[in-house]
Amino acid sequence: MPQPPYAPVNPPVRTLLGPGPSSVPPEVMAALTAPVVGHLDPEFLKIMDQVMEGLRAVFQTKNRLTLPVSGTGSAGMEAGICNALEQGDVAVIGVNGYFGGRMVEMAQRSGATVVTVEAEWGRVIPMDAIESALKKQRKVKLLALVHAETSTGILQPIVEAAKLAHHYDALFLADTVTSLGGAEVAVDGWGVDICYSGTQKCIGAPPGLAPITFGETAVEAMRKRTHKANSWYLDMSLVEQYWGAGRVYHHTAPISMTYALHEAVRLALEEGLPARWARHRLHAAALQAGLEAMGLTLHADAAHRAPMLTTVRVPDGVDDAAVRKALLTNDSIEIGGGLGPLKGKVWRIGLMGHSCNEGNVLLFLEALERALAKQGRKAQSGAGAEAASAYYRQERKKATT
Amino acid sequence: MPQPPYAPVNPPVRTLLGPGPSSVPPEVMAALTAPVVGHLDPEFLKIMDQVMEGLRAVFQTKNRLTLPVSGTGSAGMEAGICNALEQGDVAVIGVNGYFGGRMVEMAQRSGATVVTVEAEWGRVIPMDAIESALKKQRKVKLLALVHAETSTGILQPIVEAAKLAHHYDALFLADTVTSLGGAEVAVDGWGVDICYSGTQKCIGAPPGLAPITFGETAVEAMRKRTHKANSWYLDMSLVEQYWGAGRVYHHTAPISMTYALHEAVRLALEEGLPARWARHRLHAAALQAGLEAMGLTLHADAAHRAPMLTTVRVPDGVDDAAVRKALLTNDSIEIGGGLGPLKGKVWRIGLMGHSCNEGNVLLFLEALERALAKQGRKAQSGAGAEAASAYYRQERKKATT
Repeated sequence: MPQPPYAPVNPPVRTLLGPGPSSVPPEVMAALTAPVVGHLDPEFLKIMDQVMEGLRAVFQTKNRLTLPVSGTGSAGMEAGICNALEQGDVAVIGVNGYFGGRMVEMAQRSGATVVTVEAEWGRVIPMDAIESALKKQRKVKLLALVHAETSTGILQPIVEAAKLAHHYDALFLADTVTSLGGAEVAVDGWGVDICYSGTQKCIGAPPGLAPITFGETAVEAMRKRTHKANSWYLDMSLVEQYWGAGRVYHHTAPISMTYALHEAVRLALEEGLPARWARHRLHAAALQAGLEAMGLTLHADAAHRAPMLTTVRVPDGVDDAAVRKALLTNDSIEIGGGLGPLKGKVWRIGLMGHSCNEGNVLLFLEALERALAKQGRKAQSGAGAEAASAYYRQERKKATT
Repeated sequence: MPQPPYAPVNPPVRTLLGPGPSSVPPEVMAALTAPVVGHLDPEFLKIMDQVMEGLRAVFQTKNRLTLPVSGTGSAGMEAGICNALEQGDVAVIGVNGYFGGRMVEMAQRSGATVVTVEAEWGRVIPMDAIESALKKQRKVKLLALVHAETSTGILQPIVEAAKLAHHYDALFLADTVTSLGGAEVAVDGWGVDICYSGTQKCIGAPPGLAPITFGETAVEAMRKRTHKANSWYLDMSLVEQYWGAGRVYHHTAPISMTYALHEAVRLALEEGLPARWARHRLHAAALQAGLEAMGLTLHADAAHRAPMLTTVRVPDGVDDAAVRKALLTNDSIEIGGGLGPLKGKVWRIGLMGHSCNEGNVLLFLEALERALAKQGRKAQSGAGAEAASAYYRQERKKATT
């Protein structure tokens, strides 16, 4: 018998409290293993239509062009950017974290001239800076902002920015990779023209697909392009024909991942979006109460914290990587390290989708205390988990009175 | 309780004998549901290394830069094309089917000037035509050919073409989306510089990833580019840093699909590549014997038939779509219709990966006979399956004597 170079996969069970992926609910796992059918099978076409319908509900939009791009969140970002922009266009892009910078990089590859509006990593992009950038240009094609910056834990206000964009006759794009399903995203109500996300954060499926939606103004703009989108794979004028009534073959949809997304969206809608957002707010607040009770400092501006991702500063004298390694090794808990200028300076703790629950908050706070103690950092024993528990008790009391 | 807009997925069990996806073996299904871990988890990094090692074995290469692109086969195609080509380059591309045409489209989006070498859909691209195209240009950057054309069932000879490309100082790219794992692909032995595939055909995983490999000459050429690749998501100079020793974050790898590919590759290597190729040849020959015994005409040039995909002409007076619908409805068998100029003129019968077995050949031939009989086409009852069985008996006899 010939020997393959390795044994079957046998990954450990992790408590996923990093910036994504989050833990996948068992119902979604079960959907992953539904029988694979052809990508043009009438039964799969029905499932595609249901996924589009479900995604419209999650994005809170009536946009016809709402579907999962066959790649991860970054493919969604590139699909959003490269279909909106072409050579000769001007884009204004907010950069207050890693993912804003990534949008700039993609916009430049689309041939656009990019004007950045920057803010400190951990603060929101100010509206007046956005307006002044829009005002200075003759004609801006696109204003793009990240809703929840996964690198900083900031939740950027969107409504005002969308109005500004439209006032200056620009399209408005919002990156909701981290926020969708964990905080309100109201594509139609907020006036977002292009919005994309990922499956592996608050939606609760494995990574691999990128839900995206384009409003009619964005679709009109795509129709008027002079040049084709720079990526064939992500060209929405082709992709939409496969997901539309014509079912024109473009590429083979990732069947199993589509099943998983279908179920994850179904579970989100079954829970109810407002209930889901409230759940993310509740556990974020409990976590943050716990971290502060441990004497740690939260990094993101308190007025604009994303509920699904908390950044906390690595205390002076504490070895960032050693703490994360201890959490992973001793407690099988994953959290994230900092990116870019925040490397080694913050931890990123995600409470997203199925990972967002009371047990995980308490488990994590206790585990973090042990990991910090190993680093010689003394704290009142159990202070973090106690503060979180107190917060939960208080919220339960409120709910019942 | 709020009502989600649909019930959980419940797709039917199909016998997948179309141009892909093929049926997924149970071991691969099981791998899909292994616990999701983070994309930077040390345990996942080990799995990534194993997948790279396994893919090198399947591609028969020592190329360091061998990994799965996080998209379907078409993303692999675009990754191959857009990393090889940039503005000002000249590419010579063989077009004798749908997927050659797709490469042309992608090469043009990369800014390259494309010279096509065409052949009838169902014939190979002649070497003298390739040479004359290479000779006419001052400098050709890339010669690209499809190994197994999924639209025609043709298997293009590769060795000679690679030699020609190198003689004219061009890179050689081969599309092995349909062939890899089902017919010999010897990247190093044949001198292929860039080679990509998909997971959902002869590899036997669900669709969603695109194995790709770049030789050192191709990597050198990428390093010397003047412009960045037009897609950020598919830019191998970034992707390779995530899959390389530095583990520089680029995008979140599709964890579950990576598990599935890991297992599918493991099973292919456990079976043994030569045994797997022989299995694909055996069942293709049995199928083709059966189809001809039913009085049907095979479409692809007999000297160059791909073993994993057989094209057979729709007989005069027979309704293409009605036959496919009858197979799907009555027998839960999927086959493919024709693409482009072959639309309505051929059926495409895939025997790929796990779908490639004796039971499926016999089942299909019987089911096709019933479907054709409904169309008023009389044939000797059981002729197809009998001819296939006779072929199997004869091959077994050969094997034991």
